[in-house]
Amino acid sequence: MSWTIKRPDLKTLPEIQARIASLIKPPGALGQLEELAAQMALVQQSPSLSITRPTLLLFAGDHGIAEEGVSLVGPEVSTLMVRAFLNGQAAVNCFARSVDMRMEVIDSGLLAPVHPRPEGLIERRAGAGTANLAHEAAMSAQQVDDCLGWGSERAQHHVRQGANLLAVGEMGIGNTSAASALMAALLQLPPKDCVGRGSGISEERLALKQALLEKAMLRAGSEDPLDLLAEFGGFEIVQMTGAILGAAEAGVLVVIDGFIATVAAIFAERLHPEARYYMVFAHQSAEQGHALLLQHMEARPLLTLDMRLGEGSGAVLALPLLRAAAAFYNDMASFSDLGIEL
Amino acid sequence: MSWTIKRPDLKTLPEIQARIASLIKPPGALGQLEELAAQMALVQQSPSLSITRPTLLLFAGDHGIAEEGVSLVGPEVSTLMVRAFLNGQAAVNCFARSVDMRMEVIDSGLLAPVHPRPEGLIERRAGAGTANLAHEAAMSAQQVDDCLGWGSERAQHHVRQGANLLAVGEMGIGNTSAASALMAALLQLPPKDCVGRGSGISEERLALKQALLEKAMLRAGSEDPLDLLAEFGGFEIVQMTGAILGAAEAGVLVVIDGFIATVAAIFAERLHPEARYYMVFAHQSAEQGHALLLQHMEARPLLTLDMRLGEGSGAVLALPLLRAAAAFYNDMASFSDLGIEL
Repeated sequence: MSWTIKRPDLKTLPEIQARIASLIKPPGALGQLEELAAQMALVQQSPSLSITRPTLLLFAGDHGIAEEGVSLVGPEVSTLMVRAFLNGQAAVNCFARSVDMRMEVIDSGLLAPVHPRPEGLIERRAGAGTANLAHEAAMSAQQVDDCLGWGSERAQHHVRQGANLLAVGEMGIGNTSAASALMAALLQLPPKDCVGRGSGISEERLALKQALLEKAMLRAGSEDPLDLLAEFGGFEIVQMTGAILGAAEAGVLVVIDGFIATVAAIFAERLHPEARYYMVFAHQSAEQGHALLLQHMEARPLLTLDMRLGEGSGAVLALPLLRAAAAFYNDMASFSDLGIEL
Repeated sequence: MSWTIKRPDLKTLPEIQARIASLIKPPGALGQLEELAAQMALVQQSPSLSITRPTLLLFAGDHGIAEEGVSLVGPEVSTLMVRAFLNGQAAVNCFARSVDMRMEVIDSGLLAPVHPRPEGLIERRAGAGTANLAHEAAMSAQQVDDCLGWGSERAQHHVRQGANLLAVGEMGIGNTSAASALMAALLQLPPKDCVGRGSGISEERLALKQALLEKAMLRAGSEDPLDLLAEFGGFEIVQMTGAILGAAEAGVLVVIDGFIATVAAIFAERLHPEARYYMVFAHQSAEQGHALLLQHMEARPLLTLDMRLGEGSGAVLALPLLRAAAAFYNDMASFSDLGIEL
């Protein structure tokens, strides 16, 4: 897979900043929303910012490492949650309805296909769960390539349908283990700094999770992001990386959910540094590694609500802030509109 | 003025918490939104949470201390901003439109009435700006009483119109000085810990502001909140305190904007501790004293966006989070809905 990602025209930034400075407020008084509006304007290169058909791509996959008992619940919950997403019953559905955001659910490789296949479920199954990263490579190079391509394809499909803002989120029992391994290997950090309690595991399971990841790190020889993605997986994480790259190639903003989505984002950035211009970081989760990861990316998230759910829930909650940023950029009066000279 | 504020029925809290715990998510995974939903449920005492006709009350007033040059701009800007609010041109208007929130603008006592009086402006003028708190009491006891009553009346008017969620915000050149003085006097803190750069003043003006407040503190003999409100003012701050108490008496939630609104809130709490149950803290502003004030109130705001605008802008931005909290509380499936036993 390869992408052609354009760096936004940075020469327009001074003009964008001058416009924000001209509005009737003290300089900088809108804080982070000013930076957000500037980023949106840089990406959209339009005098009027817009958000059309905002869509969450929610990727679900299973992980071989779940068989080690590193999670609060077993992989049967993945299937139940996918059904709940499609029936509109989960937290992310409630949030998406409340902010008027679309969502699509993708089976990136659950242990078994959801049967009967629910209406609306997109199947891009790279396998029946990944291999157990505690003992062997979670994915093959081919699976990584497929997942990058499929994630990208879903993003670009929605852009063709008229979406100019996407978000990525995930669900997968065991996926904080995979994400922690990816983070530790890519940033060459001790796994203990990257591992947290996921959905809320005990001290004992946390110790097991750490020990398994310490052992797995011995296999993290390569610095190639694609090799690391294959080594630790998983299908939904790599599809998120693909979706982020696809969104960036299509020139639209992509909102990154919590810890696991941010791991997908740092891999997208390593593969294509220009993709960074298109990323908006929705929230800092309560998962231990997330603050550190955001720090490494020099990313400042919009929300900090101590959430640790995944599902894209934080990304959905950030949408009103993007709308607010567009609204002030588009519609606020300037000092000269009011006849004030500064 | 007196209010009859009911403490919500705390005996229902275990039931509310059990409901939240029954939903299909790991325990606590929605972080602060779980606390918010519990607070909403406690106040609304209904199995289905609702937000109807959410309305921002935006109080504007002038301050005698502005003549000392403690602000970035002069009081003529108050009038211009009030016009901008009524013409829909300010940041808060853009935000309110983007989240579908109503707003009302109240002249609590600008230097001069806005002429010609714009349609929609509510006049509850307690005077032509407060007296200069650097030298004398900013308000009389009668003005304090009037402002509390008028603020309360505006809140209760909107509740009668069908609003079950209000927010308070302010605009007034010089009002961070008044708010800092109130905070320092009430909490018996050194003014330097309570003073910040407001709209972005220079080092020099900041030193002047601090010196004036140090001197004014010598007059802060009383511990009576009503005496302190009179001593330091201002009209819009006291009207916010009244609006908060009026909302609490009417049994509806009231969203508190930034630093100055939080000062109004702590006075409301001192006057009627039960009012606290109805308060939602929208955001932590970049204004220096705000973090400390929230800490003293043991209040955790929903947003931290480095904003320092006032106008109720932060309160408006928090509304989608309240809607999201209501949405998950009302509509998420429970584990037993999915046939899962825990």
